[in-house]
Amino acid sequence: MASLAMTEQSMVKQERAARTRETLIRSAAETFDRDGFSVASLTAISSLAGVSNGALHFHFPSKAALAEAVEEAALLRLLALTGEAQDDAPPPGASRVQLLVDVTHGLAGALRTDPVLRAGFALSGELSRPRPGNLRERWRGWVEETLERAEEEGELRPEAAAGDVVTAVVAATVGFEVLAVRDGAWLSAATVTRFWRLLLPTLVPADRLAGCEASGTNRRAP
Amino acid sequence: MASLAMTEQSMVKQERAARTRETLIRSAAETFDRDGFSVASLTAISSLAGVSNGALHFHFPSKAALAEAVEEAALLRLLALTGEAQDDAPPPGASRVQLLVDVTHGLAGALRTDPVLRAGFALSGELSRPRPGNLRERWRGWVEETLERAEEEGELRPEAAAGDVVTAVVAATVGFEVLAVRDGAWLSAATVTRFWRLLLPTLVPADRLAGCEASGTNRRAP
Repeated sequence: MASLAMTEQSMVKQERAARTRETLIRSAAETFDRDGFSVASLTAISSLAGVSNGALHFHFPSKAALAEAVEEAALLRLLALTGEAQDDAPPPGASRVQLLVDVTHGLAGALRTDPVLRAGFALSGELSRPRPGNLRERWRGWVEETLERAEEEGELRPEAAAGDVVTAVVAATVGFEVLAVRDGAWLSAATVTRFWRLLLPTLVPADRLAGCEASGTNRRAP
Repeated sequence: MASLAMTEQSMVKQERAARTRETLIRSAAETFDRDGFSVASLTAISSLAGVSNGALHFHFPSKAALAEAVEEAALLRLLALTGEAQDDAPPPGASRVQLLVDVTHGLAGALRTDPVLRAGFALSGELSRPRPGNLRERWRGWVEETLERAEEEGELRPEAAAGDVVTAVVAATVGFEVLAVRDGAWLSAATVTRFWRLLLPTLVPADRLAGCEASGTNRRAP
């Protein structure tokens, strides 16, 4: 009985520790998002999380460690958006291009509402960190892989080189992310739709164009 | 004779002060560019400029004042790139779309080599400043004006809405700027050329396409 009670007590403690860790990651993301990584203070983060500075240091020895935890959490969200976490290949015949359109809509929506994802992306460009993150690079990798498959499967017009499309899509989405810091409309569904409305006719042959929805099909909505 | 000597002495002083001011603006831009605005210290800036802290404070009362001076200098460079400073309308018959292509190449080249322009653009997204700058917004304004004129003058395909093109061009160029902090290839002529090679066929009618150079015509090279 005594040992069972101990185990229960230790499980409760573990759960509480996991919750505190989650709360700290979220508070760090919100503080980085509001103040920028280099200005954000550990005191502001622990105070927003409602824990002591000591509790923060128990979980994270430094601001750099917190930034890495924010990036890990943001990467899981990105993997969920791109479907890599589920390992679910699109059904046979499903369009890779439409998947790309849907995921950019999902990413824009998530960047609008989720401070962890937003902070994770912004940390990719943070100069003052010893080891900067690579969320934008992970995003580029997924866009590249998706477009290469679309090209292999004959979804792209012969004139549209997959590499050129990767450049345009990655640059534009990172541009939306950065411009939205000052004006949230850059991450609106209308902005993303306008981008695809312009780009789709160069990407896919005319007979496939009617089957492509620039506004997304919501299959990938988070 | 005495008053002439005084005047000469005062002119020399004025010139020296102007040179010191220029040096401080350039040193501030290089320091912001390397460390980020919020981490950059006034001591690092004055030391890079080779002047005392007192001399720095004589010219600029605060880091915010230095940032505003960097932005002013960067805006002059942007105006020179877009031709607004010279007030020279393109010759009759010249393509507005080609002007836009050429200016994006000029902007990318200048962002690669000019820390003042680079710092000025980056300061537009700096959260920790009381009055953030608007260089990216000025760039958006010029792209919009140029594309609206191209549309009025019948240069665009009827399917290409000028507003959609503005969104894509501004987001992609800001994306290039931000991604180049980690990998300079995003501001290479090859990257900008690939973007335009993809976009031009949607923008201009087929009979005008042959007259458009995705790699730029160098008319606007700085």
